[in-house]
Amino acid sequence: MILTAQETHQLKKAPHVPDVLPIFHERWSPRSFSDREVSNEALSKAFEAARWAASSYNEQPWRFLVGRRGTETYKKIFESLGEFNQKWARTAPVLILGVARDNFTHNNTPNRFALYDLGAAASYMTLEAASLGLHTHQMAGFDQDKARNLLGIPADYLIGSVIALGYQDEPSKLGDDRLIGQETAPRQRKPHSEFVYESWQTPLPLA
Amino acid sequence: MILTAQETHQLKKAPHVPDVLPIFHERWSPRSFSDREVSNEALSKAFEAARWAASSYNEQPWRFLVGRRGTETYKKIFESLGEFNQKWARTAPVLILGVARDNFTHNNTPNRFALYDLGAAASYMTLEAASLGLHTHQMAGFDQDKARNLLGIPADYLIGSVIALGYQDEPSKLGDDRLIGQETAPRQRKPHSEFVYESWQTPLPLA
Repeated sequence: MILTAQETHQLKKAPHVPDVLPIFHERWSPRSFSDREVSNEALSKAFEAARWAASSYNEQPWRFLVGRRGTETYKKIFESLGEFNQKWARTAPVLILGVARDNFTHNNTPNRFALYDLGAAASYMTLEAASLGLHTHQMAGFDQDKARNLLGIPADYLIGSVIALGYQDEPSKLGDDRLIGQETAPRQRKPHSEFVYESWQTPLPLA
Repeated sequence: MILTAQETHQLKKAPHVPDVLPIFHERWSPRSFSDREVSNEALSKAFEAARWAASSYNEQPWRFLVGRRGTETYKKIFESLGEFNQKWARTAPVLILGVARDNFTHNNTPNRFALYDLGAAASYMTLEAASLGLHTHQMAGFDQDKARNLLGIPADYLIGSVIALGYQDEPSKLGDDRLIGQETAPRQRKPHSEFVYESWQTPLPLA
């Protein structure tokens, strides 16, 4: 028996710690996307959240190229995806490429926080999307040069991730045992002791 | 008349767009921190949120070095700050340095998303902190090499930002007109048209 979409969502939310904002558990990265369209209003809210992320010198280095299914931008982003990601991402109604200006507007010096700040803005976007019942899946597996060339992204912008955005569909529709297995497996994360330190590699006592 | 802490917080939240999760507006970056201590429970929740950020290959490359006032780690992080940041950050009860492993554990190849994913995890942390009534301020202005040497951070970890964490205090306590001016000014962000594109530098119609 393959878990349903709803059972899968509940399972992914399972490691919920009481009193942490539920939104952090609502967001996870499915691969089974339904072809249900995403409204302008929902997209607008997702980017409104991204807008308020913090950034070094308030540079807001992030730019998002948004492809809705059927548009040239969608086709170009999709074409740059690796074969594995093309297999499942083809049903997502929206594909987004995040990029970041790699120098500061105020003095043209390198911004070493360009990707860091893009990561923050993209994560705000994915959290807001999750609060609207949408799902997102960020991908590293695409041809950066191809994406840059097809979409005409200037050399002074760093390429971030491709983000599939849409509504979750039944895991069974992935039609591939490996994909279905990943889709319906519990989420895994390191314990606090492995990433919250008092000094290098010494866990911070938090109890 | 200098705005009070509460008036300042309301002003910073002012650009609230209806129906976007309020947490995105609750988080902003003050400089006036009170010396009120932060509980283990609150810190634990903030890092629990960070824990659930997305990352490339689920590497979770982020590590956080946490200094509570009076500890060696605090002193070392503080010592690495630039003069300007030392001026205001000295009252913050917690200083955190975020770093990211720059290659993948599974195959030791470079992880070009290390800082991107650290930015996401740090932003989850700051949002959860905001939901607990805490404030955070991320800083780029510190001596990376000094921080690396003092804290013994290995060469295969990239340095992210220093994060001051604590409770907001009265802006007037900053005792410096320029700092007070920044603290009590409205927040500024680019409109959607400048960062949400249909194709390069062409705004996506969202209305």
